Amino acid sequence: MPSLLSHIKNPEDVRALPLEELPDVAQELREFIINIVAAKEGHLGASLGVVELTIALHYVFDTPNDNLIWDVGHQAYGHKILTGRKDSFETNRQLGGISGFPKRSESPYDDFGTGHSSTSISAILGMALASKIKGDHKKEHIAVIGDASIASGMAFEGLNHLGVTDANVLIVLNDNAIGIDPSVGALKKYLTNVKKGVAKDENIFECLNLNYSGPTDGHDLPKLIEELQRLKHVKGPRLLHVITTKGKGLKQAEENQVTYHAPGKFDSKTGERIAGEHRELPPKFQDVFGHTLVELAKKNEKIVGITPAMPTGSSLKFMMEQLPERAFDVGIAEQHAVTLAAGMATEGLIPFCNIYSTFLQRAYDQVIHDVALQRIPVVFCLDRAGLVGQDGPTHHGVFDLAYLRCIPNMMLFSPLNAMELRNIMYTAQKGIESPLAIRYPRGRGTVLDWRQPFEHIEIGRGKELKKGDSIAFLTLGPIGNEIIALIKNHPSPASFGHYDVRFVKPLDTQLLHDVFLRYEHIITLEDGCKIGGLGSAVIGFANENGYTTPIKVFGIPDTFIEHGTIPELHDICALNRNHILEYLEQLL
Amino acid sequence: MPSLLSHIKNPEDVRALPLEELPDVAQELREFIINIVAAKEGHLGASLGVVELTIALHYVFDTPNDNLIWDVGHQAYGHKILTGRKDSFETNRQLGGISGFPKRSESPYDDFGTGHSSTSISAILGMALASKIKGDHKKEHIAVIGDASIASGMAFEGLNHLGVTDANVLIVLNDNAIGIDPSVGALKKYLTNVKKGVAKDENIFECLNLNYSGPTDGHDLPKLIEELQRLKHVKGPRLLHVITTKGKGLKQAEENQVTYHAPGKFDSKTGERIAGEHRELPPKFQDVFGHTLVELAKKNEKIVGITPAMPTGSSLKFMMEQLPERAFDVGIAEQHAVTLAAGMATEGLIPFCNIYSTFLQRAYDQVIHDVALQRIPVVFCLDRAGLVGQDGPTHHGVFDLAYLRCIPNMMLFSPLNAMELRNIMYTAQKGIESPLAIRYPRGRGTVLDWRQPFEHIEIGRGKELKKGDSIAFLTLGPIGNEIIALIKNHPSPASFGHYDVRFVKPLDTQLLHDVFLRYEHIITLEDGCKIGGLGSAVIGFANENGYTTPIKVFGIPDTFIEHGTIPELHDICALNRNHILEYLEQLL
Repeated sequence: MPSLLSHIKNPEDVRALPLEELPDVAQELREFIINIVAAKEGHLGASLGVVELTIALHYVFDTPNDNLIWDVGHQAYGHKILTGRKDSFETNRQLGGISGFPKRSESPYDDFGTGHSSTSISAILGMALASKIKGDHKKEHIAVIGDASIASGMAFEGLNHLGVTDANVLIVLNDNAIGIDPSVGALKKYLTNVKKGVAKDENIFECLNLNYSGPTDGHDLPKLIEELQRLKHVKGPRLLHVITTKGKGLKQAEENQVTYHAPGKFDSKTGERIAGEHRELPPKFQDVFGHTLVELAKKNEKIVGITPAMPTGSSLKFMMEQLPERAFDVGIAEQHAVTLAAGMATEGLIPFCNIYSTFLQRAYDQVIHDVALQRIPVVFCLDRAGLVGQDGPTHHGVFDLAYLRCIPNMMLFSPLNAMELRNIMYTAQKGIESPLAIRYPRGRGTVLDWRQPFEHIEIGRGKELKKGDSIAFLTLGPIGNEIIALIKNHPSPASFGHYDVRFVKPLDTQLLHDVFLRYEHIITLEDGCKIGGLGSAVIGFANENGYTTPIKVFGIPDTFIEHGTIPELHDICALNRNHILEYLEQLL
Repeated sequence: MPSLLSHIKNPEDVRALPLEELPDVAQELREFIINIVAAKEGHLGASLGVVELTIALHYVFDTPNDNLIWDVGHQAYGHKILTGRKDSFETNRQLGGISGFPKRSESPYDDFGTGHSSTSISAILGMALASKIKGDHKKEHIAVIGDASIASGMAFEGLNHLGVTDANVLIVLNDNAIGIDPSVGALKKYLTNVKKGVAKDENIFECLNLNYSGPTDGHDLPKLIEELQRLKHVKGPRLLHVITTKGKGLKQAEENQVTYHAPGKFDSKTGERIAGEHRELPPKFQDVFGHTLVELAKKNEKIVGITPAMPTGSSLKFMMEQLPERAFDVGIAEQHAVTLAAGMATEGLIPFCNIYSTFLQRAYDQVIHDVALQRIPVVFCLDRAGLVGQDGPTHHGVFDLAYLRCIPNMMLFSPLNAMELRNIMYTAQKGIESPLAIRYPRGRGTVLDWRQPFEHIEIGRGKELKKGDSIAFLTLGPIGNEIIALIKNHPSPASFGHYDVRFVKPLDTQLLHDVFLRYEHIITLEDGCKIGGLGSAVIGFANENGYTTPIKVFGIPDTFIEHGTIPELHDICALNRNHILEYLEQLL
């Protein structure tokens, strides 16, 4: 028997089905997602949790004429499959394939691109106010947002505005008590009480002047549709509280929600994850950070660790397990995380505030105003700096060098390898006089034997890796290993000097003077945007000091880089050996 | 009879007084503030509103051993006067004098520097968690935050964390229903209901697991002290809701709260403001923006205006008065403002989103992730760009060029004068393909006759103001008028070319090629940080194109600039004619 799903090209086909067939559609959609993610990898649990909700929304509302935004977007696989992307879904997250997140340029059903959390309420309210201004009072505007995302400040700002408008907005609070890691905070506690029925009469959303309904079982499709149909005939701002289970329908995913957020390859029948190779690999920078922090914190009781909702991703979980009273998951609250760290540091603690490079953008003002201006020595660990691969442009951590380098008092470091990461962490906790940002990429380093004795790193000192005759490479961070390999395999290695700059700020001006005096040509290499990063710093230094040596900058061009594997993206950006060799050939 | 205030050097002297004398201290403190602000200018209304609260807090708590943070800090004058700065208070906001905001380096009683809103909850929680980690369970940690500030996302993030801790934190919600302009939003509406006694049983702060008390009359000193003494013996997170009147004690300030937020000079007896000179002056850039927006919006019904809580300061109030359904004050919610604008623009509206340069730092991620990545043509009007004067380092808008220039798809413009501001606004509303940021400074321009017919500005085109023989000035924004004056008064004006770059992005590369080919020396001038701004862009262009012409960059050095008048600060940063003339003398 041909499946129901095979006949669904777009939501109109869903709306043409009789109500009683929809549970079967849900079953097929769930299997479709499981089968493809099992083989192709991707985000699993979030989309499984909203299968019924996805069908119900497209069944009840007139998408794409009505607007629909998926906050964050991890949960939008079902939406993509029902809106014309079933056949291309197996290209999910691949170079040239569809994006793992909603994306305006990909489909008219993706009303707003997401990736970072908590943007949906503001965006949908903007659309709803636009409809009102244009005199369209019938159009509906829906945002689906999780309980972890709605607890972020930006979402509150949106609700605070929404509550005093008469805009046709329906917020669907998808409450599964988990983001990537379990949700935290007072609002989560409150929502738990609501679900248990032990909350008082009070309702926080009614306090904000919203028409609240729920909690409703998000897996009871007929009931969900009935409730949405009722709400469709109510005007103004509404909030529907829906209870779902992340990973619904796959036992392992329900039971291990953190692991099955993005489980990698697994057996679609049994749900068992498929183990990777067993040979020993160099550790992830994340784990080097996590283990080193525990090691240092056991000896230095002033150390505290902070993560905004990324304990697993950042590996701060190791400290949370071993030193729980000094390690804090503050939820999706980057702004709070940074100023909390500043407050702690004023009292003599040494906060390691671990935030993904792309998410520190959320706390930019706090870095300037609360930390750098007051010269408070917070240690920022910027995880996933540089191109991050398949998560794509919403998640690439490529602007940090530019947006941090212009801030007075900030120090900016990137380690060449795991040992340098360990050593800079060791150095930082001994005491620094200014805030320090340490940026390192997603994924594994190059060194197996990384747990070596700590060494102090002198602030503002780069490192000569190799002296050469004519061309100097100035590199920042692990991408410098490309140059080590290039020189090693080059027929005339004596031509090349290689300097691990390490500190983009403060610059090692003595090292730079030596380099400019010695070499005929300078090449800089960084996994960050060319505008404002290492290359800019070196060019600025040269101009200020009257050096006219030609400088070639390798970095990320002034454009948003799409999704793909990191090697694919580095190739697109000319950030690998082959491209540099090509340049050298032209040069020589 | 010697006053009570004259004997108060610090809070210990307050605590030594009998309770019944405190109302007289309040009376004297209020008069002291009025007398000095009347003569020296500054922020008035906020401090008058918390005179009793200030005395009560220092009376009940053991400052500076207990921590006390004033959110934003406009209201901290009384605090400064009672904590050792009575005699220096008349230097408030002057170069070399005390800061208009709390400042850690100024006093041990200023536990955390403020200026931007909504940081206090995160900072005080950081301090309180630090006390807990250090084993100090007695120390008290207090943050005073207004009803406008607590409605901002960052404050919500802090409350959401606070509610699940057992930290000794007392949040004093200073509810006067106004920030700089009247408060807005659902939370404000809710607080109004609480005050009227018409709120339901619900309490939003109790939903967030806080121990709530109030509302309490913030001008009833004995009652306030009694309540604080009670709360002092309660542990864990508490919130006291205090009702105050902004401007309390000066009739005009109570009746015209927006005007008397910072009234300029006034008669300390009558409260009447002292009128300035009556000769006609060029308008403020703010008013050029405000009037031009109304003019354009009357013809183009797609235009909408957005301000996060600065309708008066930005002059968006003109549009709010004349086209209220299309002009939005969203409260202190920069993040929301930006993404709201993005949502509106996706539906075909043309949002002019007016945010002070320093406050756009709060919405940096939204500019990247919600606007630029999706190439949504939002028009950002960055008010108070450059050095802002007496508000000092928390408010200088000096990083915008650096933090925006690295973002792909962003266009960045700064007008030389009022006409260019009008013309770029005119150009933008005709339709642009990418987001555009227009930066202009606080204060008046140079042109009286500014309401001239609109002219289209070609995107990415600079303007040759004057051809010269050997030295080219490349200037950005109104500070370029310094160069116009310099050349005009110079004995050999023929030497100098002058180019109004206007677009830092996209750069006018044709103009730059012409300049590099023609001149022997290039000088750039901008009212922004040197790292990452116009100078950096020009140096980068030169390096990329193999030009070795010497380039001298005038801009703001890599340090935080203190408070003072704008001319004083420009002098400190070498950003005026005299400094440039000095440089030219060395050069020639």
